[in-house]
Amino acid sequence: MLSLLKILWIIGITAEGMTGALAAGRRKMDLFGVAVLASVTAIGGGSIRDVLLGHYPLTWVAEPQYLVLVVVASFVTVSMPFLLENFRVVFLVLDAVGLSVFAVIGTQVALGLGHGFVIAVVSAVVTGVFGGVIRDLLSNQIPLVFQEELYASVAVLATCVYFLLRALGASDSVTVIVSILVAVTVRLLAIWRGWSLPIFDYQERS
Amino acid sequence: MLSLLKILWIIGITAEGMTGALAAGRRKMDLFGVAVLASVTAIGGGSIRDVLLGHYPLTWVAEPQYLVLVVVASFVTVSMPFLLENFRVVFLVLDAVGLSVFAVIGTQVALGLGHGFVIAVVSAVVTGVFGGVIRDLLSNQIPLVFQEELYASVAVLATCVYFLLRALGASDSVTVIVSILVAVTVRLLAIWRGWSLPIFDYQERS
Amino acid sequence: MLSLLKILWIIGITAEGMTGALAAGRRKMDLFGVAVLASVTAIGGGSIRDVLLGHYPLTWVAEPQYLVLVVVASFVTVSMPFLLENFRVVFLVLDAVGLSVFAVIGTQVALGLGHGFVIAVVSAVVTGVFGGVIRDLLSNQIPLVFQEELYASVAVLATCVYFLLRALGASDSVTVIVSILVAVTVRLLAIWRGWSLPIFDYQERS
Repeated sequence: MLSLLKILWIIGITAEGMTGALAAGRRKMDLFGVAVLASVTAIGGGSIRDVLLGHYPLTWVAEPQYLVLVVVASFVTVSMPFLLENFRVVFLVLDAVGLSVFAVIGTQVALGLGHGFVIAVVSAVVTGVFGGVIRDLLSNQIPLVFQEELYASVAVLATCVYFLLRALGASDSVTVIVSILVAVTVRLLAIWRGWSLPIFDYQERS
Repeated sequence: MLSLLKILWIIGITAEGMTGALAAGRRKMDLFGVAVLASVTAIGGGSIRDVLLGHYPLTWVAEPQYLVLVVVASFVTVSMPFLLENFRVVFLVLDAVGLSVFAVIGTQVALGLGHGFVIAVVSAVVTGVFGGVIRDLLSNQIPLVFQEELYASVAVLATCVYFLLRALGASDSVTVIVSILVAVTVRLLAIWRGWSLPIFDYQERS
Repeated sequence: MLSLLKILWIIGITAEGMTGALAAGRRKMDLFGVAVLASVTAIGGGSIRDVLLGHYPLTWVAEPQYLVLVVVASFVTVSMPFLLENFRVVFLVLDAVGLSVFAVIGTQVALGLGHGFVIAVVSAVVTGVFGGVIRDLLSNQIPLVFQEELYASVAVLATCVYFLLRALGASDSVTVIVSILVAVTVRLLAIWRGWSLPIFDYQERS
């Protein structure tokens, strides 16, 4: 039986995979490039987290069907990119859901391995954000997540809410659901209102 | 005693290392950059595969003499790049051999760890292709393998042939040799005839 | 009790983290980008080494307080970049210390895992240099260490001195201190006198 968190994770990797496919299209890659960029965007963050924390086997290695799903979703994206343009808002919501779910899963993995708050935050950020970082590296641009409206900060927020609710004695499912809801809401508000972190602009005098 | 596959692997890492050295030269790197680019091109794919699959120790860590060979080959390349220009065809063949051998080895590693077809394909592609991907990242260009004539697809093909022959009851050595021969042939035909996968060209309307 | 090597390591990650923060500022990243670039610059090299050698848990995972230190140092950098300009010489020295200490620690880790000279050299270079390589990748430039005055070569030199002193029967602390002193000195001399490795300049005739 699939839990709610797993269903949200499947939605998340599908949505993230589609953004990877679009990035490949912007760079005129071939179908293989599309499949690779979709895969690393969807599962790259979780893979880096697992490698750094020594958490084997990796999710997609143990359950390769989810990798197949991401590749199929990327080919669907290729056959109907026009649809995505008409569903831009749906996409922003799905991406926010993906980011938030990934952050909560990252937090849980770190806690499950016995780590504390700092590593849980790192794990949430790596899971939520680093797939997109590799996508941007492979399509040769400065990673957007370092410049965009509150993106990685939302992963940090999800971990904070998660820890707070656990400290207050909330049940597992309440903790998971509320953390995700808060994170999704803040991310969407940040896009809508243009919230962002301060920029550090450092240009050497020549 | 060295097996045929190991001899082909040594040829493969040498050839791939030389392509890494040339990429370093195109970017005017120093001798250290040459050695690093040669090394990551030759052994980067296998290293990423081993890290993702938790397959320790890595080949070059257990047998560092092959790393030394790659570095020596890269310095030979530096001292006589003119030779490479006159052997361009030899090089394309060696690169095709490297790709195909890496793919077959990747398939074998995945099978040896008890994985199925999907992970075997991923392992073949990562082993065959990701060294070149890191090379291109470090020399700051969009990875060529995402745009070139059937490159990564050849790794997928090698795994498919491998599985087919095993299912037909072929012996280990027949399976290895035929998989490599088919992959090399298709790769060279693809270069010769300009075969490539469809390109996904997605430019947002502004 | 903190050993001398650990104190030097803390100075090293702080100094490297600050160079990462400055690179983020040059690309107008937000505070999150600053924290990530500082962290990967400071601890990325050691992390890649540990993953490649299967040396778990990673240092910052076991002792996350040092990651917090790097992030705090990066925010200090953001609040007073003008200071750094006035301390440019101090910074070059701290960076040279960081490089040399990282190289010696990398050598020790490899030896502690039972590896020989070649892997010790690779471990020293990866620990000393690859944090900066990831920093440069994430800020979208060709890694400087492949083009700069003797940089990675200094890591190789530190390992050579380390092995020589051990072979001569020097005590552990003498070995560590002399290796670092020689490496720092050569690095600073290289900057001062403009020493560098030969460049490999290979441009295909079109």
